[in-house]
Amino acid sequence: VTDLHPDRLLPADPATRHVARALYHEIADLPLVAVHGHVEASMLAADQPFGDPAGLLVTNDHYVLRVLHSVGVPLEQLGRVAASEGPAPEESERTAEPRAVWRLLCRHWGAFRATSTRLWLEHELTTLFGVELPLTEAAADDTYDVIAACLARDDFRPQALYRRFGLEVLSTTDPPGADFAPHDALQAGGLAVVPTLRPDTLTDPTRADWAESVDGAGVTSYRGLVDHLRAERQRSAEHGAVATDHGHVRADTEDLGPVDAGRLFDRVLAAHAGAAHVGAAHAGASGAEHYDAERLGAQLLTANAIMALDDGLVMQLHTGVRRDHDRGAAARYGSDVGADFPIAASFTDSLRALLGRCGNEPGFRLVVFTVDETVYSREIAPLASYWPGLYVGAPWWFLDAPDAMARHFAATAESAGYAKLTGFVDDTRAFCSIPARHDVARRVIAAHLARLVVEHRLTEEDAAAVAADYAYHQPRSVYRIGGS
Amino acid sequence: VTDLHPDRLLPADPATRHVARALYHEIADLPLVAVHGHVEASMLAADQPFGDPAGLLVTNDHYVLRVLHSVGVPLEQLGRVAASEGPAPEESERTAEPRAVWRLLCRHWGAFRATSTRLWLEHELTTLFGVELPLTEAAADDTYDVIAACLARDDFRPQALYRRFGLEVLSTTDPPGADFAPHDALQAGGLAVVPTLRPDTLTDPTRADWAESVDGAGVTSYRGLVDHLRAERQRSAEHGAVATDHGHVRADTEDLGPVDAGRLFDRVLAAHAGAAHVGAAHAGASGAEHYDAERLGAQLLTANAIMALDDGLVMQLHTGVRRDHDRGAAARYGSDVGADFPIAASFTDSLRALLGRCGNEPGFRLVVFTVDETVYSREIAPLASYWPGLYVGAPWWFLDAPDAMARHFAATAESAGYAKLTGFVDDTRAFCSIPARHDVARRVIAAHLARLVVEHRLTEEDAAAVAADYAYHQPRSVYRIGGS
Amino acid sequence: VTDLHPDRLLPADPATRHVARALYHEIADLPLVAVHGHVEASMLAADQPFGDPAGLLVTNDHYVLRVLHSVGVPLEQLGRVAASEGPAPEESERTAEPRAVWRLLCRHWGAFRATSTRLWLEHELTTLFGVELPLTEAAADDTYDVIAACLARDDFRPQALYRRFGLEVLSTTDPPGADFAPHDALQAGGLAVVPTLRPDTLTDPTRADWAESVDGAGVTSYRGLVDHLRAERQRSAEHGAVATDHGHVRADTEDLGPVDAGRLFDRVLAAHAGAAHVGAAHAGASGAEHYDAERLGAQLLTANAIMALDDGLVMQLHTGVRRDHDRGAAARYGSDVGADFPIAASFTDSLRALLGRCGNEPGFRLVVFTVDETVYSREIAPLASYWPGLYVGAPWWFLDAPDAMARHFAATAESAGYAKLTGFVDDTRAFCSIPARHDVARRVIAAHLARLVVEHRLTEEDAAAVAADYAYHQPRSVYRIGGS
Repeated sequence: VTDLHPDRLLPADPATRHVARALYHEIADLPLVAVHGHVEASMLAADQPFGDPAGLLVTNDHYVLRVLHSVGVPLEQLGRVAASEGPAPEESERTAEPRAVWRLLCRHWGAFRATSTRLWLEHELTTLFGVELPLTEAAADDTYDVIAACLARDDFRPQALYRRFGLEVLSTTDPPGADFAPHDALQAGGLAVVPTLRPDTLTDPTRADWAESVDGAGVTSYRGLVDHLRAERQRSAEHGAVATDHGHVRADTEDLGPVDAGRLFDRVLAAHAGAAHVGAAHAGASGAEHYDAERLGAQLLTANAIMALDDGLVMQLHTGVRRDHDRGAAARYGSDVGADFPIAASFTDSLRALLGRCGNEPGFRLVVFTVDETVYSREIAPLASYWPGLYVGAPWWFLDAPDAMARHFAATAESAGYAKLTGFVDDTRAFCSIPARHDVARRVIAAHLARLVVEHRLTEEDAAAVAADYAYHQPRSVYRIGGS
Repeated sequence: VTDLHPDRLLPADPATRHVARALYHEIADLPLVAVHGHVEASMLAADQPFGDPAGLLVTNDHYVLRVLHSVGVPLEQLGRVAASEGPAPEESERTAEPRAVWRLLCRHWGAFRATSTRLWLEHELTTLFGVELPLTEAAADDTYDVIAACLARDDFRPQALYRRFGLEVLSTTDPPGADFAPHDALQAGGLAVVPTLRPDTLTDPTRADWAESVDGAGVTSYRGLVDHLRAERQRSAEHGAVATDHGHVRADTEDLGPVDAGRLFDRVLAAHAGAAHVGAAHAGASGAEHYDAERLGAQLLTANAIMALDDGLVMQLHTGVRRDHDRGAAARYGSDVGADFPIAASFTDSLRALLGRCGNEPGFRLVVFTVDETVYSREIAPLASYWPGLYVGAPWWFLDAPDAMARHFAATAESAGYAKLTGFVDDTRAFCSIPARHDVARRVIAAHLARLVVEHRLTEEDAAAVAADYAYHQPRSVYRIGGS
Repeated sequence: VTDLHPDRLLPADPATRHVARALYHEIADLPLVAVHGHVEASMLAADQPFGDPAGLLVTNDHYVLRVLHSVGVPLEQLGRVAASEGPAPEESERTAEPRAVWRLLCRHWGAFRATSTRLWLEHELTTLFGVELPLTEAAADDTYDVIAACLARDDFRPQALYRRFGLEVLSTTDPPGADFAPHDALQAGGLAVVPTLRPDTLTDPTRADWAESVDGAGVTSYRGLVDHLRAERQRSAEHGAVATDHGHVRADTEDLGPVDAGRLFDRVLAAHAGAAHVGAAHAGASGAEHYDAERLGAQLLTANAIMALDDGLVMQLHTGVRRDHDRGAAARYGSDVGADFPIAASFTDSLRALLGRCGNEPGFRLVVFTVDETVYSREIAPLASYWPGLYVGAPWWFLDAPDAMARHFAATAESAGYAKLTGFVDDTRAFCSIPARHDVARRVIAAHLARLVVEHRLTEEDAAAVAADYAYHQPRSVYRIGGS
């Protein structure tokens, strides 16, 4: 088939499906607000044709890579090139020929059954490329050719797709010191691609590269670091940023006075220097040193919140992920090959200092994302049901899948209310998956709300309003798109 | 509309709804057994007309307050008066005029969509006051007038409503030393309003006010404290109490010998005295002191359990809540403004000492409540499926909402069986919300059981028996109402 | 009734039920692959008639015992004999007369409503014994007689039932040094009963009996212990084993060098000796000693994983259970009376060392089981969606119930995909419950997949393939039954 079923993801019960269908159709074609993500502005600005199908849909999408790896396909067969010093071995290069990579995806298509990744790929393959489903190994070369032919066309270049996708805004994620010229150029051309400062290299002293980053920024004191961050925030805002993003392992926050914060900074910097001196990785930090580093990171989150009171950037916090779980793969292929995994999260105690300082301040907005769904009903929704400055982020990463999203709605809306959800926020490096991700989310919220309508917990009018808010208006308004 | 849909909260599938409707109708009109709550006996005994609609339904219901606060309405605009020493500022008084408060509720009615709080309010507004839904800002003055007119009538006084609600028993929550004259008067008048001793000020030494409470009770030793608690328990029982209530942050219990317990008490008392001496809040206690305080609290839980073997009071344990999360609001308005939030809970290791001592003793009953639903299937239901003395409390607080209740049933009944659930226990200060809360619970249990019937996991006869148990018989029997 | 409803456990919605029914019927009669369990090979080899109905279905099934105990029936009335030194008291013997035990089950049949245990018992009672349901106290003697008459027949002997159940393979669980003669005899007779080495007494130094076990094995060094374990693994494989089983409290793993591991072993052994010397239980170990013991256990898990690279045995890890929660009952009746309960589990950080060492190695397979369902979506499924060597074990113990199983599928399949589930693995000592357990699992997977079909997330063909994999092919293939 080359058509997806129009009722996919809608609930089985006929009366509920009837309502869900109506709700979905009202929001299906709303523009896409993509306020968080990892697409590169430089790629969009260059507007070159995408490479081959395997590179676009397999090698550079760590969701796809991960599943193929999990059933035993080595990463080098999937086109990942080892970051070793010498030249890559010939054999490995040959097996990573794009058609061979594509054949591996087709051969293992069954491993993706019922995964969210398959839902997205099916949407891309049919809607964008007109490929016949299911993928089969026998037809692998044919489907490869179909996609390759599309990618060669001008209307498949990044900017053309941006317009075809109905994107109204697209946020990128950018380290301190990033060049915003691509953003400026895109905005000048009418594409609202805006930067998002992610200052983790400067604000998370548990990272091995923190001291180097701080040094590279010419920073030698806590006060100097905060000033540098303020300037970077300001610079991103001048290029259109509406938010910052913070990826700490834990959500811990502190609210120290300037003297204590200054001393803490000095201690942490000295510990990093000592670790470098003895040639040890920072992983070898003592317990006390690690505790100091965590506290300084916690303090810097609050420092960012305080700066947000001035510059109005929405603060996003992504927590609970252990990075580079497969140390061997990280060393060989670099980060972002899919070996990051969730750990237990908590927010109630962790956010107390930051919320106590900023949570009631007019205009302050903190959006929290988690990969531990146990905190939805226990911590995030209750906290957001009180603190005006706290918003419930959309289901993230491993939880951005239909059943997990349904659980998210059921676990948060009853106590926080829909007004305290950000609405749908996707989070991807896979540019072509953005419409699929929004479509899945729109179907799932329609299914969820339809159940409430049929159970007489919400009127159809209220449900329609909530659906449109979730799909479009709420992300615009929470992230102040258009300065709202 | 002024009528709620008769099938609200019942499942969409027609066959399941048919069964659910029948189950619900069999239990809809059973009397209300409200064995836990925070309504004041003195208010019922005084039997004065309720004040204005805003005071009754907004200002004094922290569920409502919380949601309005979360969308940016300051507490002082909602009628909360700062507990400052001087007179409240005039401006704040003016904005908190009851009609203005009511208008704020109406303006932000959309923020309550699909929350449990809205379900309860809708039930109260229509069933009790005949108000037209939805609330709108345009009609705010009209709806205010309708409710105000009701509240002026004699049949809307507390005791008349108690009877109209079909309350069979209502438990209050009372600190050590409480005056039980209002309970006596109400009982003499035929209303079964009974006290519940909540001795946290004496049993939780992590509280800042513990030493003062102990001193106020004339207690100077562990033995003296236990004797004092025994007397207070006995006194409550003589005035009709069937249970005690304990609100500790963690469920930790200890079973120390008298010598160790005595020394621990002495150490904790000395630490409190030391903290008072240097003018420090107890929050500044050292790690070792805090550990001691927690252990003494853990020991005092077991001490209460042992006393329950004699006096037969059911022991209720509410855990996992971090109080006064918004320190600024707590300082300004006092506790109970809605800024209490859940943290992760655990029971298996924590309850081992107490259950080892009392869990197999005839007649001993411990009911546990949690705001962390992860422990339902992991700890509470398994423990209750073995220990005769342990019962699964009803979904509490943030979890007392339809989807959360459905999850509660699905997570506990399969391993613990319905016989080990307490049945529905509401927990509110909002007197007029009691019937709504029971009605929601009765609909949700009917919906849950109907699913099991249609899936052929339970006969209709068994389901009807379980439904009636959950709604009425089980709370009576577990809490020994009428001495059962 | 003596017939169970043919549609039991299938979803209510007619269209979904239609699909579920078809899926179920395709897999209902597939052979049973029981790759994990606690049935004794010696019992099967002896092939003697089972004793009385109470002994078979009540006294020796800790699931049943637990529920009866939880509603107040003392264990001695259920036939458990105290492991005291003197003769058991006469009174207790008389009350534990089998008919009396059976009457207690019948009297408290209502306590089992909607539990998984009742589903299994109902299946056994009707399918195997033709008993009329529901059990009632009035008919207790009749039902007892019906079952007793069956048990006296030759076609109710263990081996006849093994064949009637359609068992294709049955794994036992065996301690180091176990006698595998019963396995050999059964295999010679055509019954594929295979051992599974569970070396916890040697690999978990937090156990009080560890030093004694190590000494009994003649082991005096880390190297000696690993050699002994390798030999035991090899011996089990020679008698047909396909897997090992490891039951540690936590999933922690270490990957120490031989020198560090050797020193750690020496320290732990010395600490055990010291504890024995002062007559203290190991429970009295110091914090540092307990930490050492946990680390050595963590190291021994990785040592087993490394050995699995050579001998090809699948590694099963069961974690998160606190044993002998009721110390009094454990002392009186021994372990396994039902007083084991779950605690919070975690895997991401814990398994990092082991997976880093073995997780990418060809042929390595680690299957993890948990009684904490919060880790399904947070840790286990994400980890299994990357590491080729990690598989998601089936819902275990308290979670082996219809609603919990449905949650398991919904929480794991979206990210890990069905290819990374082991398929259904039962875990029981109750031989006669094995077909019931598989039947429930087959119904629940059919119900789950039918929903995905009707929601157009999976084709019927794909769903049928997944159903058959889950019920039969996947356990065979993951555990390499028949050498696959």
